[in-house]
Amino acid sequence: MQPVVAKGKITTEHVAAFQQIVGKEYVLVDEETLRHYGHDETEHLLFLPEVVLKPRTAEEISSILKICNQDALPVTPRGGGTGLSGGALPHLGGVLIAMERFNTILQIDERNLQVTTEPGVITEVLQDSVKERGLFYPPDPSSRGSCFIGGNIAENSGGPKAVKYGVVKDYVLNLEMVLPTGEIIWTGANVLKNSTGYNLTQLVVGSEGTLGIVTKIVLKLIPLPKYDLLMLAPFASLEKASEAVSAIFRAGFTPSAMELAEINALKIVSKMVDSHAVPVNDDIAAHLIIEVDGNNMDVLMSEMEAIAELLQQFDAGEVFFADDAQQKAELWKLRRRVAEAVKSSGYTIEEDTVVPRAELPALIKGVKQLGVQHNFDVVCYGHAGDGNLHVRIHKEGIPNSHGNPEMQHILGELFKLVHSLGGTISGEHGIGLIQKGYMDIVFREANLKLMRDIKKAFDPNNILNAGKIFDL
Amino acid sequence: MQPVVAKGKITTEHVAAFQQIVGKEYVLVDEETLRHYGHDETEHLLFLPEVVLKPRTAEEISSILKICNQDALPVTPRGGGTGLSGGALPHLGGVLIAMERFNTILQIDERNLQVTTEPGVITEVLQDSVKERGLFYPPDPSSRGSCFIGGNIAENSGGPKAVKYGVVKDYVLNLEMVLPTGEIIWTGANVLKNSTGYNLTQLVVGSEGTLGIVTKIVLKLIPLPKYDLLMLAPFASLEKASEAVSAIFRAGFTPSAMELAEINALKIVSKMVDSHAVPVNDDIAAHLIIEVDGNNMDVLMSEMEAIAELLQQFDAGEVFFADDAQQKAELWKLRRRVAEAVKSSGYTIEEDTVVPRAELPALIKGVKQLGVQHNFDVVCYGHAGDGNLHVRIHKEGIPNSHGNPEMQHILGELFKLVHSLGGTISGEHGIGLIQKGYMDIVFREANLKLMRDIKKAFDPNNILNAGKIFDL
Repeated sequence: MQPVVAKGKITTEHVAAFQQIVGKEYVLVDEETLRHYGHDETEHLLFLPEVVLKPRTAEEISSILKICNQDALPVTPRGGGTGLSGGALPHLGGVLIAMERFNTILQIDERNLQVTTEPGVITEVLQDSVKERGLFYPPDPSSRGSCFIGGNIAENSGGPKAVKYGVVKDYVLNLEMVLPTGEIIWTGANVLKNSTGYNLTQLVVGSEGTLGIVTKIVLKLIPLPKYDLLMLAPFASLEKASEAVSAIFRAGFTPSAMELAEINALKIVSKMVDSHAVPVNDDIAAHLIIEVDGNNMDVLMSEMEAIAELLQQFDAGEVFFADDAQQKAELWKLRRRVAEAVKSSGYTIEEDTVVPRAELPALIKGVKQLGVQHNFDVVCYGHAGDGNLHVRIHKEGIPNSHGNPEMQHILGELFKLVHSLGGTISGEHGIGLIQKGYMDIVFREANLKLMRDIKKAFDPNNILNAGKIFDL
Repeated sequence: MQPVVAKGKITTEHVAAFQQIVGKEYVLVDEETLRHYGHDETEHLLFLPEVVLKPRTAEEISSILKICNQDALPVTPRGGGTGLSGGALPHLGGVLIAMERFNTILQIDERNLQVTTEPGVITEVLQDSVKERGLFYPPDPSSRGSCFIGGNIAENSGGPKAVKYGVVKDYVLNLEMVLPTGEIIWTGANVLKNSTGYNLTQLVVGSEGTLGIVTKIVLKLIPLPKYDLLMLAPFASLEKASEAVSAIFRAGFTPSAMELAEINALKIVSKMVDSHAVPVNDDIAAHLIIEVDGNNMDVLMSEMEAIAELLQQFDAGEVFFADDAQQKAELWKLRRRVAEAVKSSGYTIEEDTVVPRAELPALIKGVKQLGVQHNFDVVCYGHAGDGNLHVRIHKEGIPNSHGNPEMQHILGELFKLVHSLGGTISGEHGIGLIQKGYMDIVFREANLKLMRDIKKAFDPNNILNAGKIFDL
């Protein structure tokens, strides 16, 4: 990764002012720090910020943004740095605001089944904390051990449980945020139903840090299901596996996870973590990982059996039931680390396609055809129950899509395919820096104009995460 | 109801142009029609439009809006006319667009568990149609027998099932809409997860017909639960009943309905429909109506028993289990007709307060105190499981809140109370015309400015349902 050199708009006066606001130790300009905050998990991309700030309060962020707004300095907010669309990359240099000191869960409200948290809390920490009280926050990205809940809000993250429990947007009740002009607002109220004016909360969820910097988050929680069961089903054909997916829902089942992984992806990750938990024989093309959860074990057992029987109609091989917590954990670990494994083995470009569930077989077929046609290797995996397929591409000599015309053409073809199937560009990763060039494939100019005008309403000087999602 | 005389901006040339677009028979200016479309279910209010149009296609609406946009004519879209916040009242005269000819369910997609419908379909018709295929669209406003699904989108409606299944916003995947400038867009894609740009779909849901006119709706469906059980629990104290509500959720149950009705409301509706299904003895202050649903009858039975047992801690009287479909239907009929009944008996002013669930007892106590203090009668009922309490007010000589300073003061006090409990003005009815004066109680000026700027982005000439939610 070659760093992109910063554009040098930040003056020593700015740095001094920032030091006044957050304290000297939280204003960083050394190269190591700049390099650390210059990349996230997106491909091989590095853009150096000019200064990294680590504020602790909404008021500090407000003061910072007022200065940046006045002097038109680019500001990039950053959570855990696990993003896959470049949303946290400071591609214009300027100020990077690292949210890691907003790391406190403020209140777990057991009376109302809600949690109020700061955005810099690691998602898994939040999940474990509410779990101790018998409560459940389902959205569950693969990066949950290191991503921040604030980043999950920014990207409207999903994860395996989304298929039954919905995505981040379905849990966000209210947000405290600092607007680019420095004002601090709450977007809504801590209530389960709300028809009071435009839904600013839902507008901010998934807005990728372009509309404001979220400083407090109120999430709905639900009672923790008592039991879950997990099974692994091998298929001799990737398409048969994907056909089985929608059949399960049509039969009236709602699994709590319904993951698909192509055998190549599983081979790579099994090797990386030295696991033999998943059979990777030559006659297997893909596995489905299927979980059911609930409060009655008998019901779950019979559901699992019925699903396993249904799978036989799609030529599933011998189904493996994970017997204990350790086996389950092993399977989930493998699934969670697929992205990391395939990336490190050369599949550096990841797309986050999503189609109506029943179009998954057509999508997979089309993706494979594109690979043959344009001579790239591709592995597929993801949240099949949601029609959300992660497509990892390896093409010799093209490690990233940013600025490479050949790869841009290929991705354009991919997204046209997705659109023709009624789908769209991103299910849970966001558009960020690297997908923005394809927005006109799925949206009309009138849609994009509305989005740009909304951006201007929040951020008249276009300082906050400018050039993400779209260019103004 | 005295009609407010229209302002007379529509010319004979406009009428002729509209006739060209939609056909003569669908351009109506006779007084009977104007009076019919001059009111909805909101208090006693009547505002005459100047002309009523009944278009059939998005293209026709586009042509109409282009004319109105050019000549700055006020346009009010209208669904079933069952609104309770005056959202469909043509208070500025002008053009009323009646959506009743958009009455076709376009596709029930059993492969993807989705339905595509036009907005003028009656909600219950839609529900019944998908039910025949074993599918379930849960949002279920009391007016479902006459309201339009498009109006439900506009108000982000809820209803009894919201407590388990969520509100309208949780089911809307994609909307076709005509912008005030005449352009026709789709807001999103027909997918279950979407992180592709700002969520215009969620912004439009609950925007009360101010941002565009929705012409097609894609909704997520879920498998229809096989069974449900219903019980009625009497309480000697309204506060005990409301305390029981949050205790049920804290104990890990998620009923599919959790309704509260004060005894006065039940007395009135029982008399109106001549029913003895609900005991209205003098020692009863309120009833809870509790439903559970699912696919396993044994599980439901044991849940019901456990809930009934829990209720005893809150001094519930003898619990009545509805034994058959007829008894259930009778109870639901009573519940659904409460609003109509109490309105016709003089409680003409309805507020749609919502607080965090556990604050319900404090809200009820505060509402009763306000009644004593300001000398009005009040009955309460609503979706207790969501903290969504409908407050019906009767004050001698003040039949509606619009333009009455004394009632406006009272409502201001009510909403300050709601806000102090962490709640907000409307849970499911919207702000419309009659609550807009109270928005500054729950929002800062920065919030309201964002909403106004979003409105301007969609509707630069402020033609569409202008003066609803806020004034520009």
